[in-house]
Amino acid sequence: MERRVPVLHLEGVTRDEFLQRIYPQRKPVVLKGIDLGTCTTKWTVDYLSQVGGNKEVKIHVSAVPQMDFISKNFVYRTLPFDKFIQRAAEKKHSTYFISEDEKYYLRSLGEDPRKVMDNFLIQVTGKKRVVLFSPRDAQYLYLSGTKSEVLNLDNPDLSKYPLFFKARRFECVLEAGDVLFIPALWFHNVISEEFGVGVNVFWKHLSSECYDKTDTYGNKDPTAASRAIQILDRALKTLDELPEEYRDFYARRMVLRIQDKAFSSNYE
Amino acid sequence: MERRVPVLHLEGVTRDEFLQRIYPQRKPVVLKGIDLGTCTTKWTVDYLSQVGGNKEVKIHVSAVPQMDFISKNFVYRTLPFDKFIQRAAEKKHSTYFISEDEKYYLRSLGEDPRKVMDNFLIQVTGKKRVVLFSPRDAQYLYLSGTKSEVLNLDNPDLSKYPLFFKARRFECVLEAGDVLFIPALWFHNVISEEFGVGVNVFWKHLSSECYDKTDTYGNKDPTAASRAIQILDRALKTLDELPEEYRDFYARRMVLRIQDKAFSSNYE
Repeated sequence: MERRVPVLHLEGVTRDEFLQRIYPQRKPVVLKGIDLGTCTTKWTVDYLSQVGGNKEVKIHVSAVPQMDFISKNFVYRTLPFDKFIQRAAEKKHSTYFISEDEKYYLRSLGEDPRKVMDNFLIQVTGKKRVVLFSPRDAQYLYLSGTKSEVLNLDNPDLSKYPLFFKARRFECVLEAGDVLFIPALWFHNVISEEFGVGVNVFWKHLSSECYDKTDTYGNKDPTAASRAIQILDRALKTLDELPEEYRDFYARRMVLRIQDKAFSSNYE
Repeated sequence: MERRVPVLHLEGVTRDEFLQRIYPQRKPVVLKGIDLGTCTTKWTVDYLSQVGGNKEVKIHVSAVPQMDFISKNFVYRTLPFDKFIQRAAEKKHSTYFISEDEKYYLRSLGEDPRKVMDNFLIQVTGKKRVVLFSPRDAQYLYLSGTKSEVLNLDNPDLSKYPLFFKARRFECVLEAGDVLFIPALWFHNVISEEFGVGVNVFWKHLSSECYDKTDTYGNKDPTAASRAIQILDRALKTLDELPEEYRDFYARRMVLRIQDKAFSSNYE
């Protein structure tokens, strides 16, 4: 079974075309030829070092390109912004923290947002490989919280993650100037193939009353979802009154009921 | 993988041995050599016709031995009790409703009880083949309500029921005088191989406050289970406020939560 799905690339899509025909599909798409202004040519290493100044920034430093946000195979270090830019653009480092080919990552705002908001990943400069997974395939992704434990996508440990092969991989390479639409709830795994700058623009897909009012960064589940999970916990607490064999039996019936009532049937 | 498990046969078990060593295992077992009094020899066709009288009884009549309580491949007919006994004991019928080898079944009390109470199936006369399934295997049984849709156990339609082969079959043949212990929640499928009389004795396994007070026949779920399912329905109603893709996503997270918190881990 072929589980690799190329992400659609569309050239010169207008705002109206995006909003009317593409956005409602709720699927990732790479938009090419979008007018991003002068940043794609202007944001060179020299320019960024110069205008960014020498304010200290906290960066992720890792020996490998694939950073693992579950086991944390990276260390946090601090560098002046201009120094960081220069180092990140080097292939080999004469001064380094871990190794001469260590990788750097600067995340500019808060924690990694959850998948609850829609997102444009704007590849201003550099090149990234992105693999996306549909929320429908969450069951095959071995999630720890909202992140997949499977990091080595090209050579996953199938004895540890036997169902992972069932997840469909939506793949694309982002070149400078490309904009990737990542719908809310989609999982993504990014590897930078060279130094580059990406800008994420998040926005709320649902009407604003669906979101927690204290949720500045879109990190939280929609309020209806958090409430449903709280209510479920009460149901599970009630089941705890029963001996194990009955609890297990009725828990399985509850699962069937959820599948029957709330799972989407138009699974493609 | 061998999915057939013979049901343990135990000879001459005392009441105390049963209660202390066998009952707590919560597994089906055939008890042989239990003193059932004189019924095993006394309850002949002639005796039953004579003492049972001619009061009319409503019986199930089917062309095949395997009655299907989902699609209802039987009809209800009425006969005087003594006539019914004589007919049921015949191999071929000179007078019949459907066919000369039609099968009869008289269920003496209310509706088929659910699997919530413990049960002794006492085979007074005749011979039955019984296949039992653990509540843990409910997911492979294609339940419609509390009954499995898979009836032809010896030749199941695997294109329709592809997971059925995963269910472990606990099998036994009951001879006259045998007593089968069927723990609460276990599914059973019975074929009578000859005319016979079986007596079921149900009793509550859990303490009486666990059961619905209006539940005379043990047909209902324990109150904690019904409550849990009602609460779950409220959670699902809350999820309905979200668009389909979010509902599906959070429904799947709810399933993972139930599996994590309420499924039994000592699955053997």
